[in-house]
Amino acid sequence: MATGQHNFPPMHPVAGFKLGTTSAGIKTLGRSDVVIMEIAHGSSVAALFTQNAFCAAPVTLCKKHLDQHVPRYLVTNTGNANAGTGAQGIQNALRTCREMALLADVDVSSVLPFSTGVIGEPLPIDTLVAGLPSAFNDLSETGWFDAAQGILTTDTRAKGSSLQYGQDRPITITGIAKGSGMIKPNMATMLAYIATDAKIDNELLHRALRLACDKSFNRITVDSDTSTNDSVVLVATGASGVVIDEDTFESFVGHLTDIFIQLAQAIIRDGEGASKFVSVAIEGALDESEALQVAYTIAESPLVKTALSASDPNWGRILAAIGRAGIDNLDVDQVQILLNDVLIADQGARAPSYTEADGQRAMQPEDITITVRLNRGNHSATVWTTDLTYDYVRINAEYRT
Amino acid sequence: MATGQHNFPPMHPVAGFKLGTTSAGIKTLGRSDVVIMEIAHGSSVAALFTQNAFCAAPVTLCKKHLDQHVPRYLVTNTGNANAGTGAQGIQNALRTCREMALLADVDVSSVLPFSTGVIGEPLPIDTLVAGLPSAFNDLSETGWFDAAQGILTTDTRAKGSSLQYGQDRPITITGIAKGSGMIKPNMATMLAYIATDAKIDNELLHRALRLACDKSFNRITVDSDTSTNDSVVLVATGASGVVIDEDTFESFVGHLTDIFIQLAQAIIRDGEGASKFVSVAIEGALDESEALQVAYTIAESPLVKTALSASDPNWGRILAAIGRAGIDNLDVDQVQILLNDVLIADQGARAPSYTEADGQRAMQPEDITITVRLNRGNHSATVWTTDLTYDYVRINAEYRT
Repeated sequence: MATGQHNFPPMHPVAGFKLGTTSAGIKTLGRSDVVIMEIAHGSSVAALFTQNAFCAAPVTLCKKHLDQHVPRYLVTNTGNANAGTGAQGIQNALRTCREMALLADVDVSSVLPFSTGVIGEPLPIDTLVAGLPSAFNDLSETGWFDAAQGILTTDTRAKGSSLQYGQDRPITITGIAKGSGMIKPNMATMLAYIATDAKIDNELLHRALRLACDKSFNRITVDSDTSTNDSVVLVATGASGVVIDEDTFESFVGHLTDIFIQLAQAIIRDGEGASKFVSVAIEGALDESEALQVAYTIAESPLVKTALSASDPNWGRILAAIGRAGIDNLDVDQVQILLNDVLIADQGARAPSYTEADGQRAMQPEDITITVRLNRGNHSATVWTTDLTYDYVRINAEYRT
Repeated sequence: MATGQHNFPPMHPVAGFKLGTTSAGIKTLGRSDVVIMEIAHGSSVAALFTQNAFCAAPVTLCKKHLDQHVPRYLVTNTGNANAGTGAQGIQNALRTCREMALLADVDVSSVLPFSTGVIGEPLPIDTLVAGLPSAFNDLSETGWFDAAQGILTTDTRAKGSSLQYGQDRPITITGIAKGSGMIKPNMATMLAYIATDAKIDNELLHRALRLACDKSFNRITVDSDTSTNDSVVLVATGASGVVIDEDTFESFVGHLTDIFIQLAQAIIRDGEGASKFVSVAIEGALDESEALQVAYTIAESPLVKTALSASDPNWGRILAAIGRAGIDNLDVDQVQILLNDVLIADQGARAPSYTEADGQRAMQPEDITITVRLNRGNHSATVWTTDLTYDYVRINAEYRT
C-alpha cells in the first residue's frame, strides 16, 4: 500500500551530473540494482550520514573518502546493506571503490559507496563489480528516472523532485530518494541524491544541506527505526554559472528545502503498508525541541497508528501520548487537539462542540492532520508519518524470508 | 492470542482483605465490571500511579485521598477509563467514592476509585453506582478469582499470583493484575492489587513497593504506550501478626518481587496479539540505565517485533536497534548478540560459528531470549515484551469501534 497519487515528476537534468543504472543480479533477476552517478570535476559536494552507531561499512568508507577528496563517482547497490558485516564489509566497500576508480581512471578516494537492503549478510561483491561497466556505459544527464528505480528496496514507487527558479539564468535543483521502512532518519535519510547546477562553495553547501535536512528528512518517521545506512548527498556542479553567496543563500535554501520536503514526504507516502499520510503539527510549544518531542511521541505511538489505520477518531490515545511525552509542567487543561479542522479536545477533555460524527468525517480522507495546541509558547513543528496496518506487519514479517 | 499456559493459580486468602465483584452493565451485559476491595482497619497501604501527565480523574482523586486517610475501600470499574474527561470526570470519581462511603459507613476520603477502559468518554456513573450494593454484598476473602476477571478489558485471561513463606508463622502474599495493551508502565502498571497479612509500617511498605515495581512492572512493554490509568496498590493487613522490620525486610521484598514479576510477566504473556514471550537481556553495560536504554530500544522496535512474529532470526534489526539506542562511545566491535543460546553476532558482524539453520531453530520456541553483551561494564537489566502481530493491529483497529 501507499498513499497519494504516484506521479513521478518531469526531471530537469543538471548539467555536470550523470546517472547510469544496470541490473547486476544482486536483487531479483531483471530488477535494476546498481546505480553510478558521475560528478563533473570542480563541483562542490556535501553529505550527511546516519547517527546509528552500527553504521554500515559504506558509510564508514564514505566519511573517510570525503576527508581525502571531492567525490567524482557515487556507486549505489540495493539488495544488500553491507551493514553488520565487520572487517569483510569494509574490504568489500573498498573493492567497489577500487573497481570504479579503475573503470573511470580516477583516485580511489574520489569514489563513494552506498548500499541498501538486508542487514548482516555478506555483500555479493563479485556480482556487484561485474555490473559496474554496464552502469558506467549507461551514464547520462537524463538518467534520473532509471536511477530512482535502481535504488529502491521495499519501496513501491520511484521518488523524485525537480524545480527551476530564477528569471534570466535559472538554477536547477533535482533529486531522488528511496526509503519505505526502517525510517526515522537522524541527520540524514535512507538514501537521497540531490544535484544542482548552482555554483556554491563547500562550506555554504554544507550549511544549506543541514538546514534543508532539518526541515525534511529529519521530520519523518515510519517506524522509529533509524537505519544503519542513511545517507544524503548534495552535489553542486556550478554549471549554471550562477553563484550562491550570503545574499542569495536564503532563497537557494528555500527552494532546496522544497525539494527535500517533497522527497521526504514521498518516502512517507510510500511508507511500508501505509494507508494514511499523517501530519502531526504541534503548536504553542516553549521551544522547537519540545514540539518535536510531542510530535514524535504521537507519530510513533502504535495505538495512535492503529487507530489511524481504522479511520477511528480515538483521540484518547493522542491525549495519552501527549501525556507521556515527558514535557515538564504540562498544564493539561490548556491542551487542544484537532483532527483536520475539527476541534475534538479542549481543556483536557472532549470539546463541548465535538460530535462522534464530526470525528468520523475528519478521519475519512487519506491525508490527516493531527494538530495539538499546547498553548504555552510560540514554537511549532510538524512531523510526517504513516498509520500502522496489517500490511506493515506482513511486509516486515515476510521480508528476508 | 496469548503465550504460555493459562494457569490461574490457587490463591491463598489474605486475612483482613476481602473482594466483591458484580456485573453492573458498563461493559457487555453479563461480563463483570465492578470490583470492591475491603481493607481491614489498621492495615498499611502503599500505592504508585502512572507518570502520564494526562492522568485519569480517579488517579488524581486517589492521590488526594491517600494524603488524607488510610484507605478502607478500593472501587474499580472496567469498560471506561474516566480519563480525558475534565472536571466532570473528577465529579464522577468523587461520586463513586461518596456512594461507596455511604454504603460502608466510612469517610469519603477512605475510598480510592480506579477505572480502566476507553479514554475520553464520560463515565456512565449511574450504572456504576447502581452496581455497588451487589458488589458490596459479594465481599469475601476468597473472592480473588472473580475480582481478577472483573478488572479485565482487552485481556484474554485473569492474572493472579500467590505464595506463602516462613516456617512457623507463614506470611501470605496474594495479588491480581490486568493489562494487555497500552502497556509501558512508568512507576506502576495498568492495575494491580496485592495484599499480604504481614505487619509492616507504611514507610517500609512504600519502600518494598518501589523495589518490587522496579524489577517487575517497570520492566515490561507491549507497545511503549504508557497508560493514563496505571495504578498498583499494596495492602498489608498485619493479620498474621508477623512483623516485618529492617532485619526481615530483604526476605519480604524478595518474595514480594516474585509475585510482582509473575503478575508483570502474565501481562506480557497476554499482551495484545502476542504470539511470543520475549526477554531482552542486556549484559556488560556501564550502568543499569544504559542497559535499560538498549533493552527498551530493542523491545519497542517495530522491525524487531515483526521479525519475532515471523520467527525470523533477522538479527540485523537487533543490531540496528542497538546502534540507535543513543549509547555514548559504543564500541560496536565488542557487541555480541545471542538468540536463546545461539551466538549470532560477534565483533559487530555475523559470528563465524553461526548458521541460518541454528538461527531458525532458536526462533521456533514461544519463549525467546535476546541477549546482548555490550562488554563494557558490569551492569545488566532484563525487559519483557511481546512480538508485533496482525492480531495486535486488528485488536487496536477494532477496539472502540
